Amino acid sequence: MTESRLTGPIKIVGTGLIGTSIGLALRSKGLEILLEDASPAVLSLAVDFGAGSKFQSGIEPQLVVVCTPPDVTAQVIASELRAHPRATVTDVASVKGTVLTALKKEGIQLSNYVGSHPMAGREQTGALAGRGDLFTGRPWVITPGEESSKQSAALVEDLANNLGASLVSMNPFEHDRAVALVSHAPQILSSLLAARLASADSSDVSLAGQGLRDTTRIAASDPKLWMQILSANSAEVSDVLKNVRDDLDEILEALQDTTKPGSLTSIGKLLESGNLGVAKIPGKHGSSATKYAKVTVMIDDKPGELARLLTEIGEIGINLEDLTLEHATGAQVGLPELFVLPKSEAELVKSLSQRGWKIVG
Amino acid sequence: MTESRLTGPIKIVGTGLIGTSIGLALRSKGLEILLEDASPAVLSLAVDFGAGSKFQSGIEPQLVVVCTPPDVTAQVIASELRAHPRATVTDVASVKGTVLTALKKEGIQLSNYVGSHPMAGREQTGALAGRGDLFTGRPWVITPGEESSKQSAALVEDLANNLGASLVSMNPFEHDRAVALVSHAPQILSSLLAARLASADSSDVSLAGQGLRDTTRIAASDPKLWMQILSANSAEVSDVLKNVRDDLDEILEALQDTTKPGSLTSIGKLLESGNLGVAKIPGKHGSSATKYAKVTVMIDDKPGELARLLTEIGEIGINLEDLTLEHATGAQVGLPELFVLPKSEAELVKSLSQRGWKIVG
Repeated sequence: MTESRLTGPIKIVGTGLIGTSIGLALRSKGLEILLEDASPAVLSLAVDFGAGSKFQSGIEPQLVVVCTPPDVTAQVIASELRAHPRATVTDVASVKGTVLTALKKEGIQLSNYVGSHPMAGREQTGALAGRGDLFTGRPWVITPGEESSKQSAALVEDLANNLGASLVSMNPFEHDRAVALVSHAPQILSSLLAARLASADSSDVSLAGQGLRDTTRIAASDPKLWMQILSANSAEVSDVLKNVRDDLDEILEALQDTTKPGSLTSIGKLLESGNLGVAKIPGKHGSSATKYAKVTVMIDDKPGELARLLTEIGEIGINLEDLTLEHATGAQVGLPELFVLPKSEAELVKSLSQRGWKIVG
Repeated sequence: MTESRLTGPIKIVGTGLIGTSIGLALRSKGLEILLEDASPAVLSLAVDFGAGSKFQSGIEPQLVVVCTPPDVTAQVIASELRAHPRATVTDVASVKGTVLTALKKEGIQLSNYVGSHPMAGREQTGALAGRGDLFTGRPWVITPGEESSKQSAALVEDLANNLGASLVSMNPFEHDRAVALVSHAPQILSSLLAARLASADSSDVSLAGQGLRDTTRIAASDPKLWMQILSANSAEVSDVLKNVRDDLDEILEALQDTTKPGSLTSIGKLLESGNLGVAKIPGKHGSSATKYAKVTVMIDDKPGELARLLTEIGEIGINLEDLTLEHATGAQVGLPELFVLPKSEAELVKSLSQRGWKIVG
């Protein structure tokens, strides 16, 4: 990596989770951070939390990072470009095309603007949820527009690198199409499914297994934030969901009479497409999710048992690629699933069995 | 627990994953297991694997467990009831009402029949995937019909208890309504979403995060098995999916023009219903999923690091309620999420920080 061109000062507008986290991370690198927020109380909180000092007019930042809620992002970017004509301005909104289109309508000079989207977040919100390591190892998409200067793009790249993120470069509109598919449509489908549970009998819901828990986990996300995201990317999200609706209609038609010729074929085709789709999702470190072998072990549900298991796996010398704990309603046992490279599976099963662990899958 | 009334011999018809696993578990308790399968090769495999010996005509079993594919389950139950009029017969199909209705149409005497549904499985299939501990701690739903005798129901309860499962009793039709909601509709929605990925650009899919991975995990399931399950429970699954389709139509309408009065309300309502639905899902040991506090730690991605972390948590004396490893594409760090009782969160964060661990969330 070349030396960072990011020398500061850096102005952060909007001191919620993302703004505060950026401030914490860059301050620890010795950069001067200037904070601004529409709410004086929120701003004071972020300053007290150590994310930076209050912005004073007259100071000229090298970089402005707009971290406001998505519905006001474009207007804040425009006013920052006007206020600081020599600064590079970026933002962190999760939809990029709408922001760029709104800015173009303003007729503003955009060579200093480069959008970005850190793919990081937490279930908690606000300054106090901020963490300097929030972006470490997470994708940070930068979306230079046609007018963006190379210098500004390079500075935003430096920002992402300074925060320890993995840089991805995309056209703003391609970005929005991609996140509609991998993030926004999944949010809607998860909420659609979870909404069915809201009105269901509790005894029915009590049969829930890991499959339901996984498919509905993101349905616990913040409705206010998601209303803004979905509005800002409504056309791309609609495109994905219309295809889902067409497929769903075909399945409903097939379920109407599964003895009718073609019905089972329709259902089977959907399930097979699903298999193919899952296989396309990149797994850990960019490799395929299907690359790992799974070994399930039964352990007592008491402190230290999982640690003892993992210590012994360390002794055996096998690297865990992933690990999940599967729950069994009513049971006092844990069923950790260990994911390892397929070549290590046989050795792991053998060694753990010899050491007295119960392999159950 | 009272002494088991299950004395054997036990006949298992169908020696795939479930039949073989039942055989392995009951044999280890000293019970006589007799195996039957339509395929001589599959049968030999299960016998060699140690699940039991081949069934010989003339032997009268105390209990018959039908573990065939769902589409032939009813007809096999009927023939077993005729072949062994003094035996209790149960099955393990994941849809119960259809089976009972089909049996009633046969005009057969059903006092000796009690349906059941072990909520256990693996991504692998076949005898060699069988494990004696497959049912340990998992729900086992028994669904006595109106005609089922108390003695037969008690014997099937004994079967579940012998296998270490958690017993749940339900009406067969309530069971089917419940699994349509918590298992079958989630399968379809997961497949619908994953199917969108199948035809998408790989660069779009490369932005996938944990949310997409979770929502699509079960879309990797076996299409053949699921075609049978969905056909057998088509009416109940349709009921759930029709409501999903209506909600989806409302969302599509809202996304068409998010500035129209009522559009954002529609989207917000769905997201809030999703929040409520997730909160209804029972978590570990039957308690609520919302009961745990999450602490995320950043560790190096090398053998032994996770074990070292968990060993220290054991030393601190805090019990982990759940644990997941979150992946960061391209990064060489791991981000395990530790779930603990809320009262232990502050102590865990403090103690781990003192020991030099990086808490990132």
